[in-house]
Amino acid sequence: MKQQSTANPALSPFTREEFSARIERARDAMTEKGLDAIVLTSAANVEYLSGFETQFAWVTPSRPWYFVVPRTGEAVAIIPEIGDSNWRSTSWCQNIMTWPSPRPADEGIGLITECLNGLSRRFGKVGFEIGPESRLGMPVSDLLRARTSLALEIEDCTMLMAGLRSIKSTAEVDRIRHICAIAGRAFADIPTTVREGDSEKDIYRRFGANLLTKGADEVPYVAIASGQGGYQSIIMPPTDRKVRKGDILILDTGSKCAGYFCDFDRNFSFGPPSADVARVYAALWHATEAGIAAARPGRTAADVFHTQAKVLVAHGFEVGNVGRFGHGLGKLITEHPSNAPGDETVLAPGMVLTIEPSAMFAGGIMAHEEDIVISEGQADLLSLRASPEIPVVAC
Amino acid sequence: MKQQSTANPALSPFTREEFSARIERARDAMTEKGLDAIVLTSAANVEYLSGFETQFAWVTPSRPWYFVVPRTGEAVAIIPEIGDSNWRSTSWCQNIMTWPSPRPADEGIGLITECLNGLSRRFGKVGFEIGPESRLGMPVSDLLRARTSLALEIEDCTMLMAGLRSIKSTAEVDRIRHICAIAGRAFADIPTTVREGDSEKDIYRRFGANLLTKGADEVPYVAIASGQGGYQSIIMPPTDRKVRKGDILILDTGSKCAGYFCDFDRNFSFGPPSADVARVYAALWHATEAGIAAARPGRTAADVFHTQAKVLVAHGFEVGNVGRFGHGLGKLITEHPSNAPGDETVLAPGMVLTIEPSAMFAGGIMAHEEDIVISEGQADLLSLRASPEIPVVAC
Repeated sequence: MKQQSTANPALSPFTREEFSARIERARDAMTEKGLDAIVLTSAANVEYLSGFETQFAWVTPSRPWYFVVPRTGEAVAIIPEIGDSNWRSTSWCQNIMTWPSPRPADEGIGLITECLNGLSRRFGKVGFEIGPESRLGMPVSDLLRARTSLALEIEDCTMLMAGLRSIKSTAEVDRIRHICAIAGRAFADIPTTVREGDSEKDIYRRFGANLLTKGADEVPYVAIASGQGGYQSIIMPPTDRKVRKGDILILDTGSKCAGYFCDFDRNFSFGPPSADVARVYAALWHATEAGIAAARPGRTAADVFHTQAKVLVAHGFEVGNVGRFGHGLGKLITEHPSNAPGDETVLAPGMVLTIEPSAMFAGGIMAHEEDIVISEGQADLLSLRASPEIPVVAC
Repeated sequence: MKQQSTANPALSPFTREEFSARIERARDAMTEKGLDAIVLTSAANVEYLSGFETQFAWVTPSRPWYFVVPRTGEAVAIIPEIGDSNWRSTSWCQNIMTWPSPRPADEGIGLITECLNGLSRRFGKVGFEIGPESRLGMPVSDLLRARTSLALEIEDCTMLMAGLRSIKSTAEVDRIRHICAIAGRAFADIPTTVREGDSEKDIYRRFGANLLTKGADEVPYVAIASGQGGYQSIIMPPTDRKVRKGDILILDTGSKCAGYFCDFDRNFSFGPPSADVARVYAALWHATEAGIAAARPGRTAADVFHTQAKVLVAHGFEVGNVGRFGHGLGKLITEHPSNAPGDETVLAPGMVLTIEPSAMFAGGIMAHEEDIVISEGQADLLSLRASPEIPVVAC
């Protein structure tokens, strides 16, 4: 496996040109959707357009943080006073308004209203993150209150931002590749660092610490499950259950570095796998191969689902209860689109996707997952491809 | 320092009686506020009343998760199908409705509407988390859509839940004490594990890995800052800056175990501190002492602020730009109330607070922080009290 050094381009700051290009694309999309401005309050979207780097702003709901991007004119950060130096030292945007927060009577909403009502209007509409798969980063009551004194109508800008973010730049793909490599090395350590008798919590803590030590900035998500001959869920937090011979273990991580996630899993067998496990593992490995091969420009996210499902059915398995076989990946662990029936999003170069088939079998459910970037021809793998046979932990 | 064993009560599951008592208090509060039901969608509130344990549900915005608690009648979890086994194995509430998600046309909102319209009505009102310091865990457009077909008016239930959660049970305090002890041991390792020439990022990763290894479940927040003779912000993410002799370093962590946060910081001097640093450190240490002493039943959160501010002013310092000198702590890193001018919340036994004075001085800003629980007389410290003189890292 390729060693990443600290001179890796994944760890250089984004250029000013990269942010200018993002803002330009956002403005084009605003014109197309008929919005005079967008008001961003969620971590992924604020970071994407402003470059603001923080853990603080998103871990506490006490104070909202606003980034306003008008269709014409200067963008402005409207943020709590405590964040002034943090914003200035990480964002390209030095146009900042602050208020002394906490201030329950007006947590910045007065400044937002004043700012929006002062913008030049062509469409009479402003976008907030209120649409599909969104989480608004401010109290809803403040949005409803602003609505009564805003000269602009409130529309959704979630899908606009999801569309922009779905096509990654080379610099973004480098970052995802970097965290995938870190997670790949942490997964590779599992067979030699996990022992029969370890609890899921032991394994979880050691894996998390290893990810940080190897260069992850954050480990927001680790799912782990284990059981004799299989496990029952692919999203469980760790329990006190001790692994033993005959167990199948899944570890799945969404770890972050430089603002971008990886999201993939690995399965392990404690001692030689049963014939059932070997069979479902093989079916999922081949379904993943097929999914990767199908993920080409011009095909749809739904195509990627059906291609994987067909392989599983041909191997005699039912598809899992996850609702999809992969999804977009980037500043969030799950982004637009979904590899699911009905999602007719057309794939394009620069889209980063997980390929994530899951199948029901006698032992429960099993999932596989890889991360890829859509290229002109065959997609490029970002995660180191899982072995075609389930790795065995000696017992 | 007291060693925590795995037999620690902090790591036993909450009893069924604890959840019954929480639900009972929630119902009393609903009657008082005139709500027929509350619909919870945020991590802290869903976990608090249902016991559901998950990282998955809150790390991805793709699928909303609902816990509906009517004033009379049975509570119900309305959740994506993928979460069925996770919910069943962690929550006391086995009354579950699921939908196959993702399903963009109806992400559970049809079930929510049906469920709420089927409830017995006395007040004609339902609470959602839309008030101060809230983040709604579902798309706002779904809430607005539901509003048009709901037989109930939508009101805020954030403050109702904040009020309930602000008084911790003994079992909750045990958990906070446990994660405080883990963080205390990780801070204690800093002087012997950090060296001149380490970057802030190196220190951050080592500290995070150490927290996990020592028993933290998650490390959602670490702030770090360093500089010659002082630092400029107390909320910054780590940079590539290398620490050297003459630096002051702050590390602040919100780490989690068993669903509860600690939140406190420690300062370190690389080589002997300057007279300026020693002076501001002493002022903050005494302000913290005064804040802890003032935090008694019957006093207000504002009193706790003013008591600390008075000490800083008496020592000749300006208060920091944080807006408050501490806050509630529990399932979130910052909870109701704020130790701030104007917050007249009356302190009561069981409230867990941070005492967090900050002061401006020649070198920038400095903050201290401890975690306490309000008791009948003097508050009990949950964090191991910082030393009265700044710890020195040998250079």
